[in-house]
Amino acid sequence: MSAGAGDETLAGFRASIDDIDASLVTLLGERFTITRQVGIHKARVGLPAADPEREAEQIVRLREVAASVGLDPSFSEKLLRLVFAEVRREHELARRDDATAADG
Amino acid sequence: MSAGAGDETLAGFRASIDDIDASLVTLLGERFTITRQVGIHKARVGLPAADPEREAEQIVRLREVAASVGLDPSFSEKLLRLVFAEVRREHELARRDDATAADG
Repeated sequence: MSAGAGDETLAGFRASIDDIDASLVTLLGERFTITRQVGIHKARVGLPAADPEREAEQIVRLREVAASVGLDPSFSEKLLRLVFAEVRREHELARRDDATAADG
Repeated sequence: MSAGAGDETLAGFRASIDDIDASLVTLLGERFTITRQVGIHKARVGLPAADPEREAEQIVRLREVAASVGLDPSFSEKLLRLVFAEVRREHELARRDDATAADG
């Protein structure tokens, strides 16, 4: 059994954290639905998949949002870089699937 | 200038991504407001700061949420572990500040 079982104050905090985490993951799901559309759009119009300048702007902006809500900006940057890496991984997978389909 | 400047479709996608990212960071700010209260509460009632069993449950649950919204569960686990590490870092900083205050 988890330490603190039976502690109602702790249970209340944990319920709120669980709600937030579910919202975070759901929002991330929406984010990736959009980045997949971006990947398709960029391939269609012939834009490069990666855009380092746009990524740099996003990092600066989110570091500011982080500071304004009491988060360590370096922490938000680390998270965002993990998200970027996952977007790139997905784009590469999608490209590989396209190439396989074209071969088939 | 960023690649794709002047592409209105891309601009629309990017505006949505920026909105989601701001919401993500704001939600994370709320999450850390709660974990700080958890830290204070645990210190007060004498519970250990870390709870590996609770963390394991959170990871399992969020992997399921991730899969249900089309995200790679390993990716959501990586993000959550980064959040846990930041919570621990904050708790350790808070404990050190308390110790310094008690010494002074």
